[in-house]
Amino acid sequence: MSTLRDIGEDALIDRLIQLVPRDPNPAAGPGDDCAVVDPGPDSEILQLLKTDALVGRVHFLPDTPARSVGWKAAARVVSDFAAMGGKPERFLVTVALPAETEVSWVEDLYRGIGDCLKAFNAVLAGGETSSVPAGSAPVISIAATGSVLREKLVLRSTAKPGDVLLVTGTLGGSIRGKHLDFTPRVKETDWLAATWKPSAMMDLSDGLAKDLPRMAAASGCGFVVDKAALPLSPGVNVSQALGDGEDFEILFTMAPEKIADLLVTWPAAFPELPLTVIGRMVEAGKGESLTGGWDHFAP
Amino acid sequence: MSTLRDIGEDALIDRLIQLVPRDPNPAAGPGDDCAVVDPGPDSEILQLLKTDALVGRVHFLPDTPARSVGWKAAARVVSDFAAMGGKPERFLVTVALPAETEVSWVEDLYRGIGDCLKAFNAVLAGGETSSVPAGSAPVISIAATGSVLREKLVLRSTAKPGDVLLVTGTLGGSIRGKHLDFTPRVKETDWLAATWKPSAMMDLSDGLAKDLPRMAAASGCGFVVDKAALPLSPGVNVSQALGDGEDFEILFTMAPEKIADLLVTWPAAFPELPLTVIGRMVEAGKGESLTGGWDHFAP
Repeated sequence: MSTLRDIGEDALIDRLIQLVPRDPNPAAGPGDDCAVVDPGPDSEILQLLKTDALVGRVHFLPDTPARSVGWKAAARVVSDFAAMGGKPERFLVTVALPAETEVSWVEDLYRGIGDCLKAFNAVLAGGETSSVPAGSAPVISIAATGSVLREKLVLRSTAKPGDVLLVTGTLGGSIRGKHLDFTPRVKETDWLAATWKPSAMMDLSDGLAKDLPRMAAASGCGFVVDKAALPLSPGVNVSQALGDGEDFEILFTMAPEKIADLLVTWPAAFPELPLTVIGRMVEAGKGESLTGGWDHFAP
Repeated sequence: MSTLRDIGEDALIDRLIQLVPRDPNPAAGPGDDCAVVDPGPDSEILQLLKTDALVGRVHFLPDTPARSVGWKAAARVVSDFAAMGGKPERFLVTVALPAETEVSWVEDLYRGIGDCLKAFNAVLAGGETSSVPAGSAPVISIAATGSVLREKLVLRSTAKPGDVLLVTGTLGGSIRGKHLDFTPRVKETDWLAATWKPSAMMDLSDGLAKDLPRMAAASGCGFVVDKAALPLSPGVNVSQALGDGEDFEILFTMAPEKIADLLVTWPAAFPELPLTVIGRMVEAGKGESLTGGWDHFAP
C-alpha cells in the first residue's frame, strides 16, 4: 500500500482531481493559483476562488504569536489572488482546534486575520469552528472569493518559449520571520497586469525550485535559470533561495521586447522592492531541471 | 485563562466575528446557513458561500469507509445551500492528512466527494493538500459557492410569532448510519421555496435542541415545541431526537393559513419523506427553552 509520503503532493493532486466532476472550462479548474469563474462574455469581471490551510507544527509553532498566524493564514490567500492580477473580496474562515485552546489565542488569531482583511479591503463572510481531539494539531483553513478584470487576468499556464523570467523581492530565509509578516504583492501585480501584461504569473509559496517547474509544465515549456542572478535574502545561499519556500514573491514571464522598459519603470513605481531577471523560458524538453522546494508529504 | 471548552461554540463565534471586517449588508455576513452575496438589484441570482469541516475521531472514525466520509463532507455543505432554497455550484476541497495516510484512502475520500458532486450537479474548482504531524487527526475542510434565485431565498432570521414550525423526515439516531449517507434536501427546499415560501428555514446539523433556539434568536422570537409530536427515527426517544444532531433534515416556519394546504400537497410531491408540524413560534421571552444538542467545545 503506498502512502502520501511515497508519492508526494503533486502526484497526489493529479490522481485526486480525476475522481471528481470538474468544470468543463479549463480556466475554471484546479491547477492555477486560483480557480477562475467566468460569468459569461458580457461580464468584464471574473470571479476567483481560492482555499488554503495552515497546520500547527507544520506552518507555525505553538509559540508563534497567534496574531501572526492569522495574518499569515489570510495573506497566503491574498497572495494567490495577486498572482492572477486580482484582489480578494470575501473570506470563509474554518478553525479546527482542541477544546483546551485558550480563547485569547483564537481571538488573537482572528485579530491577525482582521488586520489582513482590512489591509486589502476584504471582509469575513462566514466560517466554521470544530474541535479536534486533544493533542491533534490545530488547522486553520481559509477559503475566499476574489475578482479580476477580464483584461487583467494572468494565468500560470501561458508562458511561451523565449519569454524572460522575473521575480519580485528576494528569495530564501523566509523562516527567519518573513513567512509570518510578508506583504502580498497585490499593488505590484495590479500594476503589472494593467500596464505590462505578463505572459504568465504565479506566487512563490513552495520555493522557486518547486514552483518554477510547475509554471513551466503548465505552460508546456522548459526553463533556464541564471543561478548567479538570483536575488538572495540576506545571509542566504543559492540552495536556500531555490528551496526554502514561503517567499510569497511573484514569479512572472514577459516577452523580451518589453523587459528594458519594464526594468526602467519599475523602480519609480516600487522603489523599495527589487525586480530581477532570473532566466528565461525555453521549449519543452530543453532547458534544465531543479530539485528542492517544499513537498508536504516528502520524507 | 478561559478555554474554548469553558465558553462553547456559539459564544466563541459571537466574539470572533467582532474582530474582523464584515460586509455591511447583513444578509451577507456570518450567522445563517450560508453567506449571501447580492451582486446588485439587476441580478435575479444571489451567490451563496459556505464552508464546513470534518475532523477524524470527531465526525468520523478511523474505520469509517473513506468514500462515506467524502460523501458526508460534501453533503453537509449541500444541505446548507438547500437550507436557503439554493443549490451548490463549485467546491474547494482542503485535506490536511498525516503523510502515513494510504493513497487509496484519499482516493476513496475523493470518490465519495465526487459521488455527491455528481448527484447535485456541482463541480470541483480547486483545493489544497497539507500534511499534519503524525498522530494528529485528519481534517477535511470544504468550501463552496452556490446560488439561489432572489425570489426563492429563505433566511433563518425571518420567522414571526404565530408561524408554525415544521420538520422534514425523522429525528435522532443519525449515528447509526444516516450521518454518513443522508440525502441533502435540495429537491424539497427548492419545491418549498418556489411554491410555499417558508418564512424561515435552516438545516438541522447540531440537533433540534441546539438549532431551533438559534433560529428563534436570529428571528427575535421564542418557540414552543410539542415534544409528543416529534417525528422519531426508529428506536429513538424524545431526548435523542432533540439532541443527537446530524439529522440534516430541514426545519422551517410558515404562516398558519398555508399549513392545511401544504400538508395535503406534500405527500404527493414527496411520498417517502414525512413532514411534521412540531410547534410554533411565539413572541421573544415567551415560549420555552431546550437543552442538549451538539457543542464542539463542550466538556
